Amino acid sequence: MGYYADFREYLDRLEETGRLRRIARTVDKDRELHPLVKWQYRGLAEEDRFGFLFERVTDGNGRPCNGQVASSVVAANREMYALAMGCPVDELHERWSHALDRLIPPERFATGPVKEEVHRGDVLLEHGGLHEFGIPFATNGWEAFPRVTAASCITRDPDSGRLNVGMYNSIVLGADRANLRTARHLRRHWEKCRARGVPLPAAIAVGVPPVLSLVAATNVPQTVAEFDVAGGLIGEAIPVVECETSDLVVPATSEVVIEGTIPIDIMDLDGPSGENRGHVMPGHWVHAFEVKCITHRRDPIWHDVICQLPPSESSVMRCVNSEGHVTALLRAHGISQVKDVAFHDCGSAKNLCVVRFHDVAGVRTPNSKVWHALFTVMSVDAAWPKIVIGVDEDIDPWDLDSVFWAVTNRHQPHRDVKIIQGRSAGLDESVGPRDVPGGIRGYPTSLVSPQGASAMLLDATRKWPNPPISLPRRDYMEHARELWEELELPPLKPKVPWHGVSLGHWPENEAELVALSEAGRMDEAAARLLRMGRHLDGNGDED
Amino acid sequence: MGYYADFREYLDRLEETGRLRRIARTVDKDRELHPLVKWQYRGLAEEDRFGFLFERVTDGNGRPCNGQVASSVVAANREMYALAMGCPVDELHERWSHALDRLIPPERFATGPVKEEVHRGDVLLEHGGLHEFGIPFATNGWEAFPRVTAASCITRDPDSGRLNVGMYNSIVLGADRANLRTARHLRRHWEKCRARGVPLPAAIAVGVPPVLSLVAATNVPQTVAEFDVAGGLIGEAIPVVECETSDLVVPATSEVVIEGTIPIDIMDLDGPSGENRGHVMPGHWVHAFEVKCITHRRDPIWHDVICQLPPSESSVMRCVNSEGHVTALLRAHGISQVKDVAFHDCGSAKNLCVVRFHDVAGVRTPNSKVWHALFTVMSVDAAWPKIVIGVDEDIDPWDLDSVFWAVTNRHQPHRDVKIIQGRSAGLDESVGPRDVPGGIRGYPTSLVSPQGASAMLLDATRKWPNPPISLPRRDYMEHARELWEELELPPLKPKVPWHGVSLGHWPENEAELVALSEAGRMDEAAARLLRMGRHLDGNGDED
Repeated sequence: MGYYADFREYLDRLEETGRLRRIARTVDKDRELHPLVKWQYRGLAEEDRFGFLFERVTDGNGRPCNGQVASSVVAANREMYALAMGCPVDELHERWSHALDRLIPPERFATGPVKEEVHRGDVLLEHGGLHEFGIPFATNGWEAFPRVTAASCITRDPDSGRLNVGMYNSIVLGADRANLRTARHLRRHWEKCRARGVPLPAAIAVGVPPVLSLVAATNVPQTVAEFDVAGGLIGEAIPVVECETSDLVVPATSEVVIEGTIPIDIMDLDGPSGENRGHVMPGHWVHAFEVKCITHRRDPIWHDVICQLPPSESSVMRCVNSEGHVTALLRAHGISQVKDVAFHDCGSAKNLCVVRFHDVAGVRTPNSKVWHALFTVMSVDAAWPKIVIGVDEDIDPWDLDSVFWAVTNRHQPHRDVKIIQGRSAGLDESVGPRDVPGGIRGYPTSLVSPQGASAMLLDATRKWPNPPISLPRRDYMEHARELWEELELPPLKPKVPWHGVSLGHWPENEAELVALSEAGRMDEAAARLLRMGRHLDGNGDED
Repeated sequence: MGYYADFREYLDRLEETGRLRRIARTVDKDRELHPLVKWQYRGLAEEDRFGFLFERVTDGNGRPCNGQVASSVVAANREMYALAMGCPVDELHERWSHALDRLIPPERFATGPVKEEVHRGDVLLEHGGLHEFGIPFATNGWEAFPRVTAASCITRDPDSGRLNVGMYNSIVLGADRANLRTARHLRRHWEKCRARGVPLPAAIAVGVPPVLSLVAATNVPQTVAEFDVAGGLIGEAIPVVECETSDLVVPATSEVVIEGTIPIDIMDLDGPSGENRGHVMPGHWVHAFEVKCITHRRDPIWHDVICQLPPSESSVMRCVNSEGHVTALLRAHGISQVKDVAFHDCGSAKNLCVVRFHDVAGVRTPNSKVWHALFTVMSVDAAWPKIVIGVDEDIDPWDLDSVFWAVTNRHQPHRDVKIIQGRSAGLDESVGPRDVPGGIRGYPTSLVSPQGASAMLLDATRKWPNPPISLPRRDYMEHARELWEELELPPLKPKVPWHGVSLGHWPENEAELVALSEAGRMDEAAARLLRMGRHLDGNGDED
């Protein structure tokens, strides 16, 4: 088979590529684990990040946890994301934008490794229930409970029978009690159950084939099942087994599966919980989760994802997902001038979007193709993106230096910026203060109110021919690069542009002077230029 | 003495710090030199850049040049800039904002090293005139002539007798003929000479004490002399000697001095010339420069600066200068809430400005202190900055990821952005097409015209209390950092914030839950949270 047999095989592959570090020292999951891993998101360049495998983990009381903890192993950077997906980095968007073209349903097996240990009924808590595993605290000092971060939460639509897999956060409130910060599809399943008066069965799978985690974290239309999309992406069916306490299925090779129900008669107040924009969110209402059964592999590897303030593993994951999603949206609208869509970690993978165009530069302003694309990007959601910037093909949309070179040189604010109101606030703290009662944060209360959410569109494409980029021409830079290597100077990671290019405005006279000079006739070029000088009369204007 | 005796001693110091590389291989100054050095600005991180000393240089015909060429040695990055200034990096702004508080005039000597060789009169061209030195081409393929990039051009005000030193670009048009792309003060000296009917004597000094290059590249008020500012900055007088053909003085230790005159009866058409926004600028009118005498040290070291498309040595130099200049401006206006002013290379050191405030966060919007400061920054010049962004103290204004995290989380476009028109275009190509006749690029021709320059001000400071940053609290991160070191993980370069902080909104209930959990009473915290849950009735709204 082409893809990884299971999460463990993926970790082996990660280690082979030098991107996994085993930590043999005992680590306290409640005080040390996340702070340690988070340092790499605050102190290492993206390309230098790696995954951690904690071999010996204890809880805050020094009690050893069963098995190991793998943290930051799926998407510490885009190279790791691609490894988890099983394709080269530059194929990621192509894969995502065709994700729905081929669906492969999961293959059902009678049993699998996840059934090696089964705790249910009277002995459900014999091994500690949820406390058996190394579930870490995420944002120490601001959160009060361990956080399940890489939960693939599986539920079934009571009407259609279709399975949903979503990646939701959950905090552990007891050996058999957690909550679940849900959204979208699971929420609709729950509402249907509530109308029927029955609780919603759910299974939380941890340590699944990484492609399923990636699919679970993205926006898949309600009409398709994530299992089928994940299978299609890797070209083979995900092996699944049936749950012990419901008719749900879970990946057969899952490290841990927590089966339970989501009650319909209570809602939990969430504990203080960090969110991906970068704040600790106080007091939201979330679903309760009651544990009925736990199955797991022997020596389970608990899978943990680093989320919250960007950059994080979660923001890398969601950047790639947002890019694939918006690329597909623009294609569906037939906008063929879009070359790339880039989302940025600093915008929490949703709020800062750069669209790279081809074949629009130099067309006189206003270019309705550009504006149509920018407004279409805004249609992806009421709450995001907040800022969308259009750039030309010669700009690297993932490099903010390149983007803001274009912004300072190719746009005029009064002409090329549009601000739109009527946007949804989401978790944007800038929309209004939290301590104003009456829901003022949600939507503008009046046209002159300072509250309410808005968005900015900015066209930083070239509007007409420009003079050449002031870097040496490509042939000179290529020769100099050979010289650079020959001199054994430090390794280069070239940024675009790395050579000058004509951008449409290059007067014949300038070209001729350069050609004369390059032909070894510099004196002739100088004489010609000097003949073009201007004689000034006594006191007249000279310019 | 504290400061470097001369340019050579500075290069020795640079080499001692590991920031100078000697290139022993023969290099063609007309085809290879700039492309080679420019690679480091396209392919190395700023902190990894270094200076080059080319020991063997030929021209395009293979003819060896006299002496060596030092390129990119003064400001390849801010550390080198600080070394050239003779102070730590974090003192640069303080130095600049007090630059005018202490002035030390130059000290005049009868002779100095720059007089070791004197070529004038009949034997002016005996050693080739300007062709004697390794003056490189800057933007091969788009420029036709060698470019003098580190010229400290000295002239005297015919009225006041005050000396001016400015760093201007110049291209070599013959053994005794160049031009000069001037601005500001030199231009006024020339106009005064023209009114009197006499040419303006000028001396171009190359390879001067680096502090003088830095001062020559910044905006010093017309009423003070750059020599005196440079002396004050380093705490000692710059040694000078008199010119051979005029009453001008030049640094006694200059590597090369080109004495000449600027005629008042002709203007040159500039050859195609790269500029610092990043384009090759066609056809401007510039001054002529006629060489009368050349003096130089034995085995002269030609000093070359890497300019044009940012980032470049020139953009690093001008960023620091712009920051000092605008900081002093804001102080002069009594705006005490400004902590830092940051300019960015990608905005060519002028066009993208970030102001970091203290003591403004959480004050309800609109904060007139912030807006007063942003508008005051705009008053620095009619043409720059183009974009100015205000951020809080917890944001790193030099890190675009940090700035755009603030922009996506702390501003609402409709409320916090102001666009102003009536700005000057400068060299901004986005203001209008070059091929429209009639000066349409310079200024808006009508209120509805797409032409004309504008600027954007953006307040990305917090307007009210926000929830805490979702990173572990400082004590956890500090402990984890010790763990990181103990585990010998890769070296960290921490970004801010590297730990969670309260931003004013942290409800008592959340704090208590966390305190209980940290005291080892997690079960109690969970019980308390669960008691706060909400019981739902049959079909009612639950949120």
